[in-house]
Amino acid sequence: MSSRQYAALPDPFAMHRGGVLRGARIAWESWGTLSPAKDNAILLFTGLSPSAHAAASAADPSPGWWDPILGPGLAIDTQRYFVIAVNSLGSCFGSTGPASTNPATGKTYRLDFPELAVEDIANGGYEVLRSLGIERAHTVIGPSLGGMVVLAFAAQHPGVARQLVSISGSIASSPFAIALRSLQREAILADPAWQAGQYAPDAPPRNGLRLARKLGTITYRSAGEWDQRFGRERIPGAPQEANSFAHEFQVESYLEAQAEKFVAAFDANCYLYLSRAMDRFELETLPTACVQRALVIGVTTDILFPIGDQRRIARALERSGAATELVEMPSIEGHDAFLVDIPRFSVAIRDFLRMSSSSP
Amino acid sequence: MSSRQYAALPDPFAMHRGGVLRGARIAWESWGTLSPAKDNAILLFTGLSPSAHAAASAADPSPGWWDPILGPGLAIDTQRYFVIAVNSLGSCFGSTGPASTNPATGKTYRLDFPELAVEDIANGGYEVLRSLGIERAHTVIGPSLGGMVVLAFAAQHPGVARQLVSISGSIASSPFAIALRSLQREAILADPAWQAGQYAPDAPPRNGLRLARKLGTITYRSAGEWDQRFGRERIPGAPQEANSFAHEFQVESYLEAQAEKFVAAFDANCYLYLSRAMDRFELETLPTACVQRALVIGVTTDILFPIGDQRRIARALERSGAATELVEMPSIEGHDAFLVDIPRFSVAIRDFLRMSSSSP
Repeated sequence: MSSRQYAALPDPFAMHRGGVLRGARIAWESWGTLSPAKDNAILLFTGLSPSAHAAASAADPSPGWWDPILGPGLAIDTQRYFVIAVNSLGSCFGSTGPASTNPATGKTYRLDFPELAVEDIANGGYEVLRSLGIERAHTVIGPSLGGMVVLAFAAQHPGVARQLVSISGSIASSPFAIALRSLQREAILADPAWQAGQYAPDAPPRNGLRLARKLGTITYRSAGEWDQRFGRERIPGAPQEANSFAHEFQVESYLEAQAEKFVAAFDANCYLYLSRAMDRFELETLPTACVQRALVIGVTTDILFPIGDQRRIARALERSGAATELVEMPSIEGHDAFLVDIPRFSVAIRDFLRMSSSSP
Repeated sequence: MSSRQYAALPDPFAMHRGGVLRGARIAWESWGTLSPAKDNAILLFTGLSPSAHAAASAADPSPGWWDPILGPGLAIDTQRYFVIAVNSLGSCFGSTGPASTNPATGKTYRLDFPELAVEDIANGGYEVLRSLGIERAHTVIGPSLGGMVVLAFAAQHPGVARQLVSISGSIASSPFAIALRSLQREAILADPAWQAGQYAPDAPPRNGLRLARKLGTITYRSAGEWDQRFGRERIPGAPQEANSFAHEFQVESYLEAQAEKFVAAFDANCYLYLSRAMDRFELETLPTACVQRALVIGVTTDILFPIGDQRRIARALERSGAATELVEMPSIEGHDAFLVDIPRFSVAIRDFLRMSSSSP
């Protein structure tokens, strides 16, 4: 059973860096009830890989990616807010992307998909609001890639969101993050199964995707967390031969499990487009008064979107005139802390949203 | 012209974790003059990939990997010390390794090479000392993998080195470092050209090695250094098409150049053996009085051999009774700082060696 809904994009839909999409759509899910005044909508963007299924619901009780944060009585309280999560344009969970059919040819887009920019993902979310007749969002929220998207949203549609929450995002990727993502893409390109993007759906570049995801997982966490969690524990019964290079440590087995899940679900070409969009994203300035209030959350152990990036976001928002709060979290879980360090993130997000409610 | 010399290992040479080598040898180079009392020898081990050519010499004026540290009047003063650098056992620059001929079969060892341990590399260096009639080394020094090797040396041959300098090493790799190395090996194993280790010398698994090296380079440096060095600078004339995933940023071009050099020089099977030896290395305790004095240098921005690893090394040395100095360097260059932050490393190493000379 699916709670997935779709919003048609304007046809044609102009892409930020050129080209258009025809007959494109955005998949979304929602929780809570839109108020008669349509003033309680929270628009949630995702990181690089999740779908719009951010939380379980009656229509789809399967686990969501942000279950402990999003629900009745939780930090993003669905008894109070109408929460809309969108699958990014360019992704492969219902929204149009490189794995979708190109209506002009009747074939899968693959590399014929126009260049994807972070701004296009923001515009996709904006069109979902429009399709629901929502003129202003109460708050836009996004972690990781989503933390970039909310900034692009504020820049493209000043005044459409009253508030903004950027979690572990960036206004311009650092060369370190670019290097890591470049290597992830190269692992896919180097897999003979990639076939210059023309792989069959049942024969994707599994090895390349697996390597890319493992590298992602390594950079999403922190050395300190893994010291506590895995140490040097071995996999029981792992081969010990001189010429075996099989997995031997528990941390390797964890990476493998994460990668297997990802390879089974994600399209390689979509990954390439989304990954490069992050590298090319660069937001010099934000328009004056694009949002009224902003919360920027960063994690001190994040090596991919380091705390310096968060300070830069906060400064840009302040310069735009937003009342900005920067929270530097000491969580041990690195970039992924928003998925794991629920107590700290709950408090920060709830406090920010509460303050807005008491002074509308 | 080469200044490379060779020391024959005892035949058979027993490996630390089982198996023997027949007719094996260690390649080494030296600078300076051995004193009549044979008490001024410094034994230098390397990181994972360098040869024994640590510095230029009359016999081989090509650049060495530690030219600014090793030479007349430099931190490791070759007017005072007889410096011996060894190519690690298991490597491919003259010492016996998986790319050498197995005398039992007349064919290249490849995966028939017995398991390599960090202790074997230490023992290889020890045999070079023996071959020169040197009973005691003045100091053993090693960075990175070499920083592990010197600890194994002290553990295997207590009292043979008076002093020890471990630079950015570890007494047991963290799960974060294991994860990264596991991924580097997997990139090689996943390259169809690897052919289960049976690749021809002129058709090595280039893509796999390239990915492995790029990941290495990323983790050898720091995000902060790359912010300063590359920022978001583009490669002039880089393609901008929607469906091109070619390199576009200067940092990508830097990684490519580093990887190309490596792929041209290093053997994939040797890489696998050395990499796994680092993962499996684990030194619980050091024998009492294995060395008299020790210098442990770590770099605060090192993500691969983090500063916590350095403190653990220092504690282990202190517990063994060595007069131990721990230097935590604020260098911005991460793990590779010993190759780049020459002023700080010169001062620390020179001061340590000077103090030993004034109080023999």
